[in-house]
Order: sequence, then structure tokens, then C-alpha cells
Amino acid sequence: MAAHRLSEDAKGVYIISATPFGDNGALDLDSADRLTDFYVETGVDGITILGMMGEAPKLSADEAVAFMKRVVARVRDTHPVVVGVSGAGLDNMARLAGTAMDAGAAGVMVAPMAGLSTEERIHAYYAQVFKALGEDTPVCYQDYPQTTGVHISVGCFTRLTRDFPQLVMLKHEDCPGLDKLTRVRAQAEAEGVRRVSVLVGNGGLYLPQELARGADGAMTGFAYPEMLVGVVGKHRDGERDAAEDLFDAYLPLVRHEQQPGFGLAVRKEILRRRGIIESAATRAPGPSLTPDDHKELDRLIARVERKSRELTDGS
Amino acid sequence: MAAHRLSEDAKGVYIISATPFGDNGALDLDSADRLTDFYVETGVDGITILGMMGEAPKLSADEAVAFMKRVVARVRDTHPVVVGVSGAGLDNMARLAGTAMDAGAAGVMVAPMAGLSTEERIHAYYAQVFKALGEDTPVCYQDYPQTTGVHISVGCFTRLTRDFPQLVMLKHEDCPGLDKLTRVRAQAEAEGVRRVSVLVGNGGLYLPQELARGADGAMTGFAYPEMLVGVVGKHRDGERDAAEDLFDAYLPLVRHEQQPGFGLAVRKEILRRRGIIESAATRAPGPSLTPDDHKELDRLIARVERKSRELTDGS
Amino acid sequence: MAAHRLSEDAKGVYIISATPFGDNGALDLDSADRLTDFYVETGVDGITILGMMGEAPKLSADEAVAFMKRVVARVRDTHPVVVGVSGAGLDNMARLAGTAMDAGAAGVMVAPMAGLSTEERIHAYYAQVFKALGEDTPVCYQDYPQTTGVHISVGCFTRLTRDFPQLVMLKHEDCPGLDKLTRVRAQAEAEGVRRVSVLVGNGGLYLPQELARGADGAMTGFAYPEMLVGVVGKHRDGERDAAEDLFDAYLPLVRHEQQPGFGLAVRKEILRRRGIIESAATRAPGPSLTPDDHKELDRLIARVERKSRELTDGS
Amino acid sequence: MAAHRLSEDAKGVYIISATPFGDNGALDLDSADRLTDFYVETGVDGITILGMMGEAPKLSADEAVAFMKRVVARVRDTHPVVVGVSGAGLDNMARLAGTAMDAGAAGVMVAPMAGLSTEERIHAYYAQVFKALGEDTPVCYQDYPQTTGVHISVGCFTRLTRDFPQLVMLKHEDCPGLDKLTRVRAQAEAEGVRRVSVLVGNGGLYLPQELARGADGAMTGFAYPEMLVGVVGKHRDGERDAAEDLFDAYLPLVRHEQQPGFGLAVRKEILRRRGIIESAATRAPGPSLTPDDHKELDRLIARVERKSRELTDGS
Repeated sequence: MAAHRLSEDAKGVYIISATPFGDNGALDLDSADRLTDFYVETGVDGITILGMMGEAPKLSADEAVAFMKRVVARVRDTHPVVVGVSGAGLDNMARLAGTAMDAGAAGVMVAPMAGLSTEERIHAYYAQVFKALGEDTPVCYQDYPQTTGVHISVGCFTRLTRDFPQLVMLKHEDCPGLDKLTRVRAQAEAEGVRRVSVLVGNGGLYLPQELARGADGAMTGFAYPEMLVGVVGKHRDGERDAAEDLFDAYLPLVRHEQQPGFGLAVRKEILRRRGIIESAATRAPGPSLTPDDHKELDRLIARVERKSRELTDGS
Repeated sequence: MAAHRLSEDAKGVYIISATPFGDNGALDLDSADRLTDFYVETGVDGITILGMMGEAPKLSADEAVAFMKRVVARVRDTHPVVVGVSGAGLDNMARLAGTAMDAGAAGVMVAPMAGLSTEERIHAYYAQVFKALGEDTPVCYQDYPQTTGVHISVGCFTRLTRDFPQLVMLKHEDCPGLDKLTRVRAQAEAEGVRRVSVLVGNGGLYLPQELARGADGAMTGFAYPEMLVGVVGKHRDGERDAAEDLFDAYLPLVRHEQQPGFGLAVRKEILRRRGIIESAATRAPGPSLTPDDHKELDRLIARVERKSRELTDGS
Repeated sequence: MAAHRLSEDAKGVYIISATPFGDNGALDLDSADRLTDFYVETGVDGITILGMMGEAPKLSADEAVAFMKRVVARVRDTHPVVVGVSGAGLDNMARLAGTAMDAGAAGVMVAPMAGLSTEERIHAYYAQVFKALGEDTPVCYQDYPQTTGVHISVGCFTRLTRDFPQLVMLKHEDCPGLDKLTRVRAQAEAEGVRRVSVLVGNGGLYLPQELARGADGAMTGFAYPEMLVGVVGKHRDGERDAAEDLFDAYLPLVRHEQQPGFGLAVRKEILRRRGIIESAATRAPGPSLTPDDHKELDRLIARVERKSRELTDGS
Repeated sequence: MAAHRLSEDAKGVYIISATPFGDNGALDLDSADRLTDFYVETGVDGITILGMMGEAPKLSADEAVAFMKRVVARVRDTHPVVVGVSGAGLDNMARLAGTAMDAGAAGVMVAPMAGLSTEERIHAYYAQVFKALGEDTPVCYQDYPQTTGVHISVGCFTRLTRDFPQLVMLKHEDCPGLDKLTRVRAQAEAEGVRRVSVLVGNGGLYLPQELARGADGAMTGFAYPEMLVGVVGKHRDGERDAAEDLFDAYLPLVRHEQQPGFGLAVRKEILRRRGIIESAATRAPGPSLTPDDHKELDRLIARVERKSRELTDGS
């Protein structure tokens, strides 16, 4: 049983963890340990693994379980772990979710499968999902139409919330999505529907605005989690300008890391340079950096670290 | 004012008209006259122009109006003409629709613009459309997600029907769509919502099955309209097997003409061979036939015409 | 080692096998045995398993291997088995392919992963694939852009053929694709590039035309494989009209089974009605038939079987 | 004849102009005059009109010509005007391009039409386009696959450059696109192919990095053109850090304005607040701002203007 259980009260930063591989492509569990410790030290409130940026579909079923158990075992007494279980078939999804919950995960994340082209289909799909997972498994809905191709309306999400108590969290990364976030909050309140936790994704690209519109934090994977933690914390403390100053200092890198597909190589390389993971390798077929990309990154990192130091020194 | 006005009672075959060009690409209005007469002679109940297969986006605004007026003038006393007015902006849409209705068109057809990714957006868009067109303009909803990328659920279509009296017809060509058609009829009846006319598209590829599920006819553009007319007529007369025998005789060509994009070149070439239009040219960039395509078509036509003769002789 | 090894000489019908499940969703290996035997009895030349219509992504890794070994063991002395190994990561692909080849499979089929948006990327991806699989694994390229979203030009396919001797077969199901097939043959000949085997998919919807344009047969999954075998055989024997008469008799059902997504439920139900598999269940989330769908299918089957009998009796 | 003619030497900032409408939706040519003057005063090197952000498809043909002539007439002696002419049919494209060139435009911009799924098709399409436009019309290729769905490889763009002397400019906005830009330059140089002008789009989101990789400037439409002009100028003068400091000061707003679809409403509202255009209205169906959006924008603008002042005061 998990010390933590995902609920509507979740807030703060749930970092999306990378999955470290060696240069030879093998799962690198020692780096995974260091990475988990690093995330904890930066002050995150939870960890999400096996998400899209976690290269989950490139792991074997055994590797996915091994990585999941390693991370959960390391933090289960202190931090909730959310496990991505999205996939084509409900049997595989239920099996992985069951294994995760048994190992002590706090909940699972499910993105809609491709091809759910109407609300009727989205609702019917999640009805199947919730039934397959069992009512003891808390679920986070990942709303990322840029990749899934599935668009959920505010009305449909509100209906899902009303119909399924297991649905406790929205990972919000539709774009443009600021008004949608406002309406998610407004419609639930207007209809007297449970307020779920909303954590935002998209690399945090709109984090200050989203916090102002009612997000409870971020669930995303920027290579400087301390920025995400700082922004969410300052915002909670009412220091909106300080939060935004911190955010803006890192924004050039947030934007750089947010390039679709390619950004994962940037993120892993920064984590490698920071001494956390052994290799920046992604599994084939995956992105990698050219010498020009490296030089560009040198400069971006130097500028961002200088600005963030100035901010700290100046405050 | 039109002698005919599109309404929920529409049934039979509304042929989707090709737009004839000369080999030089100029609009060929003489061929348009012959084509209109030909359609009437095959027994169609109405004509739809400036649809997707009518190469509407390749016409100038003036050409579109000239073609529209020519066709409407030729048949307005006897046959309803439906004018496709789909497009990116409501101003252009309203202008063309107004011109068409003034000239004597029976109604207009509007496909959802690209990017309407949720029911909220579809409903809001059509609310704008109906307002822009004015309540005196009857509208056919073209449900063709294969091209528009917009998927409407049965529930959303039923809501549109309830909310907007102008919506009198569904051009049904979602695929797979047989069960959807059954549910369109069932949900309207269950909720006491007006029964609209449903005409089917997709080149008629599923026509017999769709008639059995409650379609009122076809709105599509096969180069042998007499088959569509015959199948719908026999089905209405309760001769289901005869209807299906006739359909099956032409099915190899229906399937051939139904190839996305390319099919238009086939359709125009058959109309040309039948002596109806002067040239099979499509406007650039558009499909055309290679010598191999021609040889293949020779054979397909020969076989279909032989079979349909056998059917007539045998009956 | 396989008694058979996939090569450029492959021809005839490689049936795409369904994967049978019990009503409870469990893999049904007894039905798999009967299905394999049935395919062999209808005269197919090979069997392809774990393709898109084989619900492969809904199997666990262990189930995929179990099913694969069962089919291969049953026919490896007499019939080549091609194993679909497409997937997001090369490690998983190489592992499954290795297991399959060790068990006696004849070769593997690889569709391009989503997102390969240029020829440069397609070529680079297959270079990685061929290296990961090893040069002893013959590969069939599945060209099915309707589902993969990846479009390969004739020039790029020809380059792949020239660069990688392992590429021995094209599963051709681009649509429209008739002219493309002609150009695949013409460009290889013009450039002196190896002639690969081309088997066509799309449920066989254009089979007679494709055979005339240089296809070596079909790799698809119609529920009456005897039709595919008959058409390919008669065509090879120069009886083009007889081939096409046979094809046309089944065309209403070919077209019905070819409805995207839904068609799998039709196919499995026909196989169930024919007494071959125990249950028509697809794994969740998957399509199923309504009572109306069943009634419609009753009629389509009755008509097709009557017509095919008339054809046999008449000949 | 134009005082300017688009060529490979173009550099600096070609601002993408909004198209101003009144609150009633009518084209507002007085605002267009002020907007044109404003752009010129900020120091832009050229103006691009009737692009995707210019709501071109929502104009009637007459409106498009009226707006084009107004802008061209105002600046033709001093600034090149590039006219977007992309569209479904080559006849309409050639007509608009001819009218524009006759009026004194410097060149035209053509995005690939939807559905060009292979390099063969892209090349064939542009061959048709160049022929239809005539060799006296310089062309900018708009590479924006996020909207067009058409992906061009570096190899294919290089071939187009070699084959068609009219192709003088690339509007680069593929994303991720930094490495692509490097390769566009490298491959042309390696093959001895003409160096074309490369101006970058995407709202300038990666402008400093793109300048470092060989871009000649920007062709995009940020509401503070003075930032784009400043960044390009400082970069040209070798002041890379100053360029990037200026860019970073505006980045929160660049990112905000870059939200797909919605960003146009932000851009027009800022231009309205700055006193340049009368109304921020977009044509229906188009985006607009909610009260929350306005409040959010207040804050973003206040912060950006404060930061940019600090930068000026501090330097």
C-alpha cells in the first residue's frame, strides 16, 4: 500500500521523470536512483514516471516494471508516485496499473487513446478504463491533444468528474488552454461538481498564467525542477512578481526544451551536465544533439544560470 | 424565390454535380447545361452544386456565381438546387448563400470548418452560421470527417436539430457510419426531435444498407446516376433484392470512383465518354488519368455495362 | 530455422490472421489452431500474424510470443509465416523479431512509425530498423498511410530496395494506389533495381486491378480466403474475366468488411459463423456488432453465398 | 513595377501585417494606413500581407485586392511588399499574384497546399505554381507544417532552389527547426546551390538561435516590431548578448502571442491598445479575448514594458 494516494488535494510540483539509459541503450537504474534523489532534493511534491517523455513505449514490459519498482521503492514513504499506463489495450493497462498500485504507487495517469473523435467515445472509453482499473486506483486524465489527437471539452471533462469518483486529477496541457483552465474551474463550481487537482504540463511554458487561473501546480519535466518548485511556492505565498521574475529568468530554456520531440534530448543532456544521469542517450529511434545543438545549449545554459544567480543575489 | 425550398421532406437522389471545364481550364457552361439536363433525364430529384467534388475552391467568386446561376436557371421550376457554401469565413459564406437563395436555390450545404475539435465548438460554429445565413435559408449539414477532420456525435447533431429549425438535412458520409445513421434516427425519435432528411454520400458505397437503416436517399455524384435513382426507387417500392442486384452490378465502378481525390478524374472521364461534358479536365492542381488508368477504366466500364444489361434483359 | 524464408519470389495469398480471444478476452489458442488449419485448407500460400488487424498492441509481450509460436509450430514445414513487429522502439522490435525468426518465422513486417514526415526520415528510420534486426531477417514494408500517417514516394521505396537487400516485399495499401503500384514496378525496372514481391492489402478492395498492374498477390484478411486464392489463381492462369467475376460476387462483403476499425468485428463474426473461431470478441477497446449490424450481415452473407454458388454452378 | 523586387538578398524584418477590421467586421482601410505607417516607423525592412495571420481566407476577392493595393501604394517606393497568395487553385493564385505584381508588390508567398504527402508531390506542385505565376514573380516558400501538414526535407528544398530561379526566399517555421535551418545552409553550400534568403517565423520564438544558425532575419508578426528590428540589428552588429537581452525581455509576450489561433486576438488587441488600429476584431469565426484574458494581458504588457525600459535605461 502506498503511503500516499493520489487525491483531489494534490498540489505543487509533480516532476515528470526522464528514464535514464546507458550509452548502450540499457536501462540505467543507478542513474534512476540519482535522478529520483535529485528530484526530491529540489523540493518536488511528487514524481510521475513512464509518461510520454519517459520513453515508456520503448521499454519492454519487464523494464517498465523494474524501473517503476525502483523509483517507487526509493520514495514511497515520502512522495507520491504517479505511473503512466496509457496504451492501446485495457488488459495491458490494467495489468501495469495493478502492479504499480501493489508496489506502492499513488495513482496512474491515462491519456485517451488515439481515435476518440467525439465526447460519446471519450466518455465510453474512460468508463471502460475506470472499470478495468478498479475503483481503488486514482486516475489523472492527461489532456494533451497535440500528441493524442483527442480533444475533450470542458463539459465532457466535468461529466467525467461527476460520473467517476476515481478521476482526481487533470494534467492540463491543451494549447491554447488558458481559457479552458478557467472554464474547467468555473463549470465545476457552477454545477456543484467536485474540484479536482489540476497540474499543468507543456514544460511549464504558461505556468504563471495557469497558476493565476486556478491550477494547483505543475506536472511536467523541466531540467531545472527548482524553478518549477520556486515559481509554484512564491505564487502560493502571494509573491506573484517574484514568481514571474524567477520564471522569466528560465523562460529561454523552458521554450528551448519545449520543442516537440527534440526537447527530450535537451532535457536529458542538461540532466547529464548537471551530473545527475550518466548518459543523455534516448532509446532508438530518438532525438540526439548535434555539435551545433551543443554549442547553442552552452550559451543558453550560461545565460540562464547567470540570470538566475543575479536574481538570487539581487533579492 | 425558388419553386422548391429544401425541407425535412426531401428524399430520393440529389446528384452532386461536377463542374465542367474546357481543356484550357475555363469554365464550360455549355457542358454545364448538358450535364444538368442529363442529370434531370436520369430521374434525379435534386442537384447539389459547388460541393467538394465540384472543385468549388478552385473557382473565382465570379465563376462560382456564374455557374450557380446557370444551373439554377435551368431547373429551378422543376428541381431543387442545393449550393455548397462551406468556407473559412462567415462573410463570404453569407454572401454566396444570399446570392444563391436570391437566384432561386432551394438551400445551402455547410460542412464544418477545420479545427472544430469539440462539440462545444461545433455547436457554437453552427450557431454563428445559422445567424449569418438568416433563418430563411435551409441548411444541409455535411458530415464528412474524412476530409473536414470534424467529428460530430449523434447527440450533438440531435441538439443542433432541436436548436435550429433551419437545419433540415444531413448529408451522411461518416465512415464507418451505418450504426451512426441508425442512432441518428433513434435518438431523434426517443427525444421527440424533428426528423430531418438524411441523404447519404461516399459515392453511394453503402447505399442499400443505409436505405435499410433509415436514409431518405443519396446525395452523391456517381457517373451513372440512373443506378442511384434505380436503387432508391426499388428500395422505396419494397424490392430490396432487385435494388441490391442493381447496386451490385455497378459496385465495381462505385468502388473505383470512390478513391479519394483520384475518383473525380474517373467520374469526369466517364461523363465525357458518355458524351455529356466536353472535357474531363480538372482544374490544377487536380487529378488526371494515365494511359494505364484509361485501359483499366475501359475494362471496368465494359464489365459493368454488360452486367447491367444482363440485369435488365433478365428481369 | 524456417523451412521457408521470405524472399522477393513470394506470391499468392498471405492471409492476415485474426487473433482469436474467448468471450472473456483471454487468448484462445485452440481457436488459433483451427483458424490456422482453415487458412491452410483454403489454399493460402502464407500467413501473416500480429498485424494491425491482429490486435497486436493489445496483447502482452508473452501473449504475442505464445500466439506466434503456436501458429509457426503448426505450419512451419509447409507455409511461411510473416510476423508483424512494428512498434515504437527498436529494442522491442528486435527482440520480438529475433524470437520469431528463432521459432521459424519466414520474415517480419515493419510499418513506419508515426511522425516520419520526410523521405530523409523514412530512409534513416529503416536504416536503423534493418541494422537492429540484422541482415538475416527478411523484411516486408507495410505501406499503409491511412493508419500510419507516413507517406513513402516511389522514389524513396526504390532507394530503400537498392540500399537494403533485406527488404524483399512491399505490402501495398496506399489509396489511391493503383498508379503508385505501376510506378513501383516501372521505376525499379528503369533503374535496374531488384524486383521485390508486392502483395496488396486494403482487404483486397482493388485486387483484380492490382494484379493487372503487377502485384504478385494479396496480403490481407478477408473472411473468405478462398475468394482471394481463387482470384489470384485464375488471374495467374490468364482467366481475367473469371477472376473478376469471382471477385465481384464477393465485393459487397469485401467493401463491408473494409470499413475502418469496425470491419474487424465483421471479419471475426463471419469466421465465428463459419465455425472456425469460438468467439468473435475483440479485445477492449474494440468494435462489436449491434443487433442491427447482425441482421445486415445475415443479408449480406446470404446474398454473397448465393451468388458465389451460382457462379460455381454456372461454370 | 515595384521599386523593390524580392530577391535572395532580402534581410532584416519583414513584418507580417494584420488585416484590420472595424467592430462591424468591415475592412478598415484607415487603420490599415496607420498600421502600415507604424510598421515603417519601427524600422521594418519589408511588409508581408494576406498571410495566414492576415485572415486572408476570410476576405472576399475584392477586399483582398483593395487591401493589397492600399498597402502597396503607401510604401512601394520605400519598402518591398510580399503578398500571400496560397490557395486551393492555381487559377485564383495566378490571378491574385498578377494583380499584386502589377500593383507594385515585390513578390509573393506560397505555402504548399494540403495533402502534398511526398517530395515528388511537393516538387510537382511547385513546378506547376512557378509556371502558373510566370518567371517574373519572385516566390517565398512558406515552410509551416504545423498548419499546412506538408513537410519538406532539406534535400527537397535544395532541389527546388536549384530547379527554380524564382524561388528566392524561405519563410522558415518548421518546429523543431533549428537543425533544419543549419542543414538548409550547409546542403546548399555543399552542392553549390544558390543561397536564398531565409527569414524566420513562429512569432520569432527562436529568433536569436536562428540568426546564429544563418537566418537573414524574421518574417513574422509580433505586436512589438521594434523588438524584432532591434534583435536583428544588434545581432548583425555582433552584439549577441545585447540582442538576446532585448529578446528575453519580450519573450513572455512572444510566447503568449504564439498560442495557435488565439494569438491573433492578442496581437490585434496590443496593436489596438498601442493606438494603431481602431478595433481588435477578428472576422468570424475568429478568436477574441475574455475579461480574464484582458486582465492577464494587462499584467504581461506591464511587465514586458517595464523590463524593456530597464534595459534601455540600463544600457
